[in-house]
Amino acid sequence: MKFGSLKSPHSADGELCVVSRDLKTAVKATSIAASLREAVETWEKSEGPLRSLYESLNANRCDNAFPVREGDFQSALPRTWLFADGSAFIHHIKLVRKARNAALPETLTTVPLMYQAESGRFLAPTEDIPQVDFAHGTDFEAEVGVITDHVAIGTSPADALKKVRLLVLINDVSLRGLIPAELAMGFGFFQSKPNKALSPFALTPDELGSSWKDGRVHLPLEVNYNGEFFGKANAGAMHFGFGELIAHAARTRELAAGTLIGSGTVANEDPTVGSSCLVEKRTIEQIETGTPSTPYMKVGDTIEIKMKNTDGHDLFGRIFQRVRQVSK
Amino acid sequence: MKFGSLKSPHSADGELCVVSRDLKTAVKATSIAASLREAVETWEKSEGPLRSLYESLNANRCDNAFPVREGDFQSALPRTWLFADGSAFIHHIKLVRKARNAALPETLTTVPLMYQAESGRFLAPTEDIPQVDFAHGTDFEAEVGVITDHVAIGTSPADALKKVRLLVLINDVSLRGLIPAELAMGFGFFQSKPNKALSPFALTPDELGSSWKDGRVHLPLEVNYNGEFFGKANAGAMHFGFGELIAHAARTRELAAGTLIGSGTVANEDPTVGSSCLVEKRTIEQIETGTPSTPYMKVGDTIEIKMKNTDGHDLFGRIFQRVRQVSK
Repeated sequence: MKFGSLKSPHSADGELCVVSRDLKTAVKATSIAASLREAVETWEKSEGPLRSLYESLNANRCDNAFPVREGDFQSALPRTWLFADGSAFIHHIKLVRKARNAALPETLTTVPLMYQAESGRFLAPTEDIPQVDFAHGTDFEAEVGVITDHVAIGTSPADALKKVRLLVLINDVSLRGLIPAELAMGFGFFQSKPNKALSPFALTPDELGSSWKDGRVHLPLEVNYNGEFFGKANAGAMHFGFGELIAHAARTRELAAGTLIGSGTVANEDPTVGSSCLVEKRTIEQIETGTPSTPYMKVGDTIEIKMKNTDGHDLFGRIFQRVRQVSK
Repeated sequence: MKFGSLKSPHSADGELCVVSRDLKTAVKATSIAASLREAVETWEKSEGPLRSLYESLNANRCDNAFPVREGDFQSALPRTWLFADGSAFIHHIKLVRKARNAALPETLTTVPLMYQAESGRFLAPTEDIPQVDFAHGTDFEAEVGVITDHVAIGTSPADALKKVRLLVLINDVSLRGLIPAELAMGFGFFQSKPNKALSPFALTPDELGSSWKDGRVHLPLEVNYNGEFFGKANAGAMHFGFGELIAHAARTRELAAGTLIGSGTVANEDPTVGSSCLVEKRTIEQIETGTPSTPYMKVGDTIEIKMKNTDGHDLFGRIFQRVRQVSK
């Protein structure tokens, strides 16, 4: 199934829609669940009716179907209770820590890095990224994420994987200029990790066929910066799979239904596939020439993030954001 | 006004109640807003009708009023989009960093320490604290907190203070044994900060009269451990007021209506007022005798947190929790 959340003046959660497999038409599903959050919270009851509606839509048997227009949709899940963002691509950690002259954690390959990110309002997929100050070093981070059912404390990685209900793409906007001072204070990220955006559509894992395997999405994540190719790293190269990331998050706390778990910036060792964030490109430039030459995002710069299936069809719709100045 | 959230099989947000000033009776307010979260999200519209209902209840003019029973209530706000927990008591930071041999941040007195805490399900005020492993070092942290309206990016401390809608007490459960390894990884707290509990009742600031001043609650926070006095530090001793803490949280992100901002563990320099968490007591013991003698919480240990007004009346109801073993 594919889902979207129509912008609504009445609810910050949006209005739940089922979206056709080709992403061309949608139909409201609010009679089954008011929002995607509520659908996940009542999954046992809502899954069957939603699947029937999805099949009707794909067979062109829905009278109320309407054409999908990009600007009408919020992030697939407009807000949620927890966004726990992992950092499962070891190659990214190595490069980024090198860039800020930070030591590698001793537990690099055994314990996932994870932080709790903003989830009170995801920016819409085509909403501007607000920039308070260019010196904050605005960067994008292209990721994949899973939305889970309720997960009990101490759930194993294998059982945690069974709790995955939906997949999305994420732009984990980061303010590189604020990170060193913030991490030096010892409490982790806060101001350096502002509001993020998700893809317009969330997919049940079966929509990916054999590309969803071992708790990983084995497809390239396409990143275009200012209209030009920037990266197409394969999201399947996670060192820790989503089962491990969910279990890590749930080791001492229960996870509410609707929890979003992020992969961290997708990164591959093969340099020909490019990068999924500016800091990686800057680090590679620094290693090669002694100085990074790519600046962080300026007002007007655009970032596009999307993913195609093995047959070349768009899966999640696209995140397409432009940087906008806000007053200090 | 005073509010509570009745436990409900139908909603994790509970059912909104207005609670009498003496905390003895309550009346459902679900015809005005289904939950406290929705009341805060629609404050402009809901505040007037809620105030009328509160006045009727205090005048014994509500036919549907019922007696308040402790176990019937969830945390005043059962779940929310963001819990940003500050650390505004410099004395606590100094002691805790000393205990784990960590350096003091250079910006100790100029930039608040803050981390993003679990907010997807607050434990009920009398719900057990789950303990996976005694070696995790379960500790309580007694705090005060404010619940805000929507706050725009870059809001000043003075304007931020105008966004405070409600006050609560917080038990920021902490797992001391997990903190050193987690902070050493560089991403801040996650597993070391599990589900928290709030007081059963949330108060509009006017309920505190002149004790709410300069964005601080100038009253002692009473902490009893295993039925005995443990602390009564004054919550007004915050180095940063709530205006500064909210503005810090909103520097680069917007805050959703219903955001909870915590003070951090209440701590005073006067040793006769005791402590608001075990780690402080242990640190003092270590300084005085070379070894901490108070163990962290064991299964069966109880913690009570409450606050009285200057006239001796209970303000928020009590947090009263017992530690319970859960399977690993």
